[in-house]
This record gives sequence, C-alpha cells and structure tokens, in this order.
Amino acid sequence: MSEFRLDPTTREWVVIATERARRPHDFVVRAGRVAQPAFLADCPFCPGNEAQTTTERAAYIDPATGRWRVRVVDNKYPAVKAGGSTMRRHEHPFALSLDGVGSHEVVIETPLHNRHFAQFSDDEAFDVVRAFRDRLRVLSVREDVRQVIIFKNHGPTAGTSLEHPHSQVVTTPVVPWHRRHHYDVAIRHFDEEGINLYADLLQFELDQHVRIVAESDGFVELHPYASRRPFETWIVPRLARSSLAGVPDDELREFGTMLRDSLNVLQNVLNDPDYNFILYTVPTGDEDEPYYSWHVRIYPRLTAVAGFEIGSGIHINTSLPEETALFMREFRTINGMPGRSEQDG
Amino acid sequence: MSEFRLDPTTREWVVIATERARRPHDFVVRAGRVAQPAFLADCPFCPGNEAQTTTERAAYIDPATGRWRVRVVDNKYPAVKAGGSTMRRHEHPFALSLDGVGSHEVVIETPLHNRHFAQFSDDEAFDVVRAFRDRLRVLSVREDVRQVIIFKNHGPTAGTSLEHPHSQVVTTPVVPWHRRHHYDVAIRHFDEEGINLYADLLQFELDQHVRIVAESDGFVELHPYASRRPFETWIVPRLARSSLAGVPDDELREFGTMLRDSLNVLQNVLNDPDYNFILYTVPTGDEDEPYYSWHVRIYPRLTAVAGFEIGSGIHINTSLPEETALFMREFRTINGMPGRSEQDG
Repeated sequence: MSEFRLDPTTREWVVIATERARRPHDFVVRAGRVAQPAFLADCPFCPGNEAQTTTERAAYIDPATGRWRVRVVDNKYPAVKAGGSTMRRHEHPFALSLDGVGSHEVVIETPLHNRHFAQFSDDEAFDVVRAFRDRLRVLSVREDVRQVIIFKNHGPTAGTSLEHPHSQVVTTPVVPWHRRHHYDVAIRHFDEEGINLYADLLQFELDQHVRIVAESDGFVELHPYASRRPFETWIVPRLARSSLAGVPDDELREFGTMLRDSLNVLQNVLNDPDYNFILYTVPTGDEDEPYYSWHVRIYPRLTAVAGFEIGSGIHINTSLPEETALFMREFRTINGMPGRSEQDG
Repeated sequence: MSEFRLDPTTREWVVIATERARRPHDFVVRAGRVAQPAFLADCPFCPGNEAQTTTERAAYIDPATGRWRVRVVDNKYPAVKAGGSTMRRHEHPFALSLDGVGSHEVVIETPLHNRHFAQFSDDEAFDVVRAFRDRLRVLSVREDVRQVIIFKNHGPTAGTSLEHPHSQVVTTPVVPWHRRHHYDVAIRHFDEEGINLYADLLQFELDQHVRIVAESDGFVELHPYASRRPFETWIVPRLARSSLAGVPDDELREFGTMLRDSLNVLQNVLNDPDYNFILYTVPTGDEDEPYYSWHVRIYPRLTAVAGFEIGSGIHINTSLPEETALFMREFRTINGMPGRSEQDG
C-alpha cells in the first residue's frame, strides 16, 4: 500500500506510491541529447560574442590568461528589472499589483558551450557557486529586494532553451508566499524546540542513515524522507548558517565540489536527465537569524507534474527515497567516488 | 515593465512578464498529434475490453442501445486504495506517515478511443460531469475521505500516456496543505466581508469586463486577473454553492456544455495543446458552509514550469490575461459561438 509522508520543512504531504513503484533504473532517460560544439558562433554566451549580452554585472577572470571563466550579465528578457517602485497599486481589493522591480541576472558558468556543471573541475564549480554568493551579497542590500532566488534549469523540460550552461539569479520585491510559509515552519521549529530545524533534521537523517547519498567534512547529500519526485536530492551543510552570503571560501569550495559530484552521478546514472536546482537562503534582513540553514535542492525532471499535483499540492512520487539513495551510494562505491557514506560496506 | 499581481484566492503573487510578452497567437502548438482510430483492440478502455479494467464503480448506460456511455473503474495502479487506516504513524517527529488510503477512480469519458471532450455533444459532456458529481456524492461520505480531487490530464506533458479520453477522481485522507490554505483565504474573506469570495470576485470581473471570455445563464468563463499561465481559464457558477455535490442536473448540464465549449475553443485556437483541468470543491463535511464556490480551472501546458516557479511558488506568465481573453472572445464572435459576452461588439 502507498504511504503519505509529511515533509517536515513545509508540512506538506507527499504520496510515496509503491503500487506504481518503479525501480531506480526504470528512470533512466531513453533519448540522448544532441552533441554540442565547444564554441558556437551565434551563441550570445560564447566568448567573442560578449557584445550580444546586456550589462555585465560581474566577471571572474583567469589570472593566467586574462580571459573570463564566469560572467554575470543581465537577462535580455528580464522577468523583473531595476527602475520601478515597490509601492503597491490598489486598483481594487481584487486587483493588487506592483512593478516588476528587481534584478534578473544570468550566470554564464563557463566559456565552453558544451561543458556542463557535472563535468566541471573543483575550480570551475567553485567559481560558479562563488558567483552565486557574491551576487547574493550585492543584491541583498538593495532597497527593492526582499528575496533572492538562485536556480538552474538544465534541459528543455526543466525550462531552458539556451544550451550554453548558465544559471540565474532573480530578485523579488516581496517574500513569495510559498517561501514565507517555508520560513515560518523553520521559525516555529526554532521557537518550540530551540534548535535549528535543518540541523535537527540532518541529525535525524544521519541517525536513520537510509537516505544518505554522500558525506563530506562540511556537507551531507541525501534523498529526503518526503521526496516529492524520484531522485529529489538535497545538499545540506553540517553547520547551519541562515544565508549563503555568510559562507567562507573554503566551505563554498567544498560545496561546489559536492554539487558537481551530485550532478555528475545523476548524469551518469540516469543518462543526463533534465533537472532544476534551487538554492534556498533566508529573505534579506534575516541573515543573522538563527532559524534557517541555506541548502540546495535538486529536482530531476523524470515524471510529469499532472492535474493531481496542480490541484492538491500533493506530489505522487513513484519511487522510494530509501531505494534511490541506495542506488546512488552503490554507484559511487563501485566507481570509487569520494564522499561516499562512511557507514556503507 | 512587468507587473506583480496578487491572486485574491490564494494571496500568491504572479509575475505578468510584459518584457518577454508573447502575443496570444504565439502560443499555438506547432506539432500535431498522431491521429487515433475510433477503436483500438489493445486499449483497456475501449468497448469489448471491459474485463481488462478493475472493479467498475459506476456506468452510465445508453437506454436505446443498452451500451455504456461513461464508465467509472478503479485505477489499475492506484495512488491510494481502500483497506488501510487513517491512523498516523509517528516513527519520529520528522517521519510522520499514514497509509495511502482512499479511492483512485478513472472516468472513461466515452466508448470512442478518438473522441475528445472538446468534441462531445451536450449529452456526452453532461454524462461526464454528472459522473464527477455522482462519484463525489458517494465518496464524500466515506470515513477515510477528507478531500476529493477531480481532474483531467490531456496529453503527455500534462501527465497522461493513455490516449483513450479519461479523467480521474482521487480521494485523500487528509485535506492537502495547499488546499487548506486556499479554503482559509475564502473563509477569511467570508468572515471579514460577509460575502462569498467567489461571488464577490465574479462581480469584480463582470464589472471590469476585460477578462471575461463567455457567459451563460448560470456560468462565467474568464481568464483570471493573476493568471499563473498563458490561457489559464476558470469557469465559475453565478450561484455560489460550496460543493459540486449539490448541483442539480439542469445546472450541471449547462456547466458540461460550457466546459466543452471552452475546451473546444482552446483546441481550435491553439492547435490542441496539452492541458489539465481541476475541479475545486469543499473538503468533506463543509458542504453546507457558505464560504466557498465550486468551480473549474483549466491549465493549458504551453510553457514549462522552471526553477524559479519551483523555488519561489511565483509563476512567470508571459501573456496578459486581458489579451488572451479578448483573443478567445474574438474567435467565438467570428465563429458565431453561443455564450459570448453580451458587452462585446
């Protein structure tokens, strides 16, 4: 019989649908991607085409060559942009609006058109997550920013059409309702238990040790108890800091490597599925609050979100996180990858 | 500049992204579907293959021929099923679960493998929505049912692989968190204003009259102010009843026709896009409460839900509901369809 499980970070139920359960290897993507060249003349993100992008917000330069390794530019078709007002317009009680004010930036992760995060060196991965942190620091102090959403869309079903590897940093002038609830759950846990929710949850997962994929000195990779989707993956720091903005370089480098490894295993095991990853961090102004821990959630796009999910908010997950985590651990063990869980084998 | 708009039924923001705005006709689906035969020997939903389906829960018979027009059967791979307990298992504060108990039914909408809701006669459409209401009535009184989710997935990106036209009725032993919030907004509105939220909202939309697509004696079709997706469509009854279970036959027949017309226009205008529709009705036990109005929401799958949406809960809509509603009204006017808005032309 299937099982409803409660996500302790959102208090939402998910259905772990064992009746329709598919084994981990059933999720392997059938169709391969079209191979891409290292450089494409008409790609706006490829070196030499810098003039085709809009305002450059940051660049990480290779000291040896003087060339950029990572560039941050404004999105050419921004969802939000600078120059508006955060004043609400009350046209009617049922028509409340405000300007789409903020910043919508694209992180061009590499000069190479065909080099994906999953293949990055430690240095390359560090460059990208450092760009996330640095942009978060700059954007968080702006008057028109209440929340910074950092994410990556990999592949067409995950919402991207541009092949050149990139991620995005979007600010909102409001704390999204969905996020506010997510933080409220963490605040309530802190109020009631006096312990950071994520530190507490991480200890639970480490104690149970059936959904852990990998561990390093500073981070744990796991498939959460109430996974919404097959192979949903979280990377959680052992030291709970409320914001990514406060993470020092050495810790950030370790995180970049762990994220790269996680995406690399995903690519190898499931034949390069589309995915999104989202970086969770506190709203601006709460950086010194003790209730939250920044972390990343990776959502491979292996199954469709259908009417039941849209209408109920409850996701039906046709895999068991305990099984998928084991599957990933075993792949790592067989391939001698670092960071495998100590209690294995 | 884009605009944030607040959905008055969920208090969630959406971004109406005018910078990336696409005209209504830009959403026309390029690839057509593979034509299907009227009958397929190996389709479990086609007549003659009734033995391939599981328990039949209801059948609507044609009195002239004695053959079924609509059948309701248990889903072969149910997300939930009868026989479990609603008792919670508290394995740990972070591992709360219960049995996947309930009912997961499939409404086989027609004996014809290739006849879609958009092409149904008034009688056929009535049969299907009557099946929804009748199953809701039966399921609502069960001890293990707190919510009934009625929905349709049309096409692969909307989550269905089975071609034979069908929709689904799934019960949950909990009120989903997402739905609970949605009802709370309506309750609060009733508490504060003393008026049903949906009746009040409908009056606002009728007064503004820029997002109305069609009207009939009993129903209004509109593209809501804070549409999450291009061509999101709501059909709202003028008379606010909390539950679909209480709708009499004549009103239900009118609803079926309006839903058919809406899906027909969608199919014609956008070249048969994938879509989901979801029927909203109160949790079981609240049928006599005055705060809610049952209604349907149609979500064409024209754009991908990407990392920003997953991470923030804010949808970026690249069309203006005022423009898409006008586009639909004009199509109806040109084609002399009934139910077009009286204030047009």
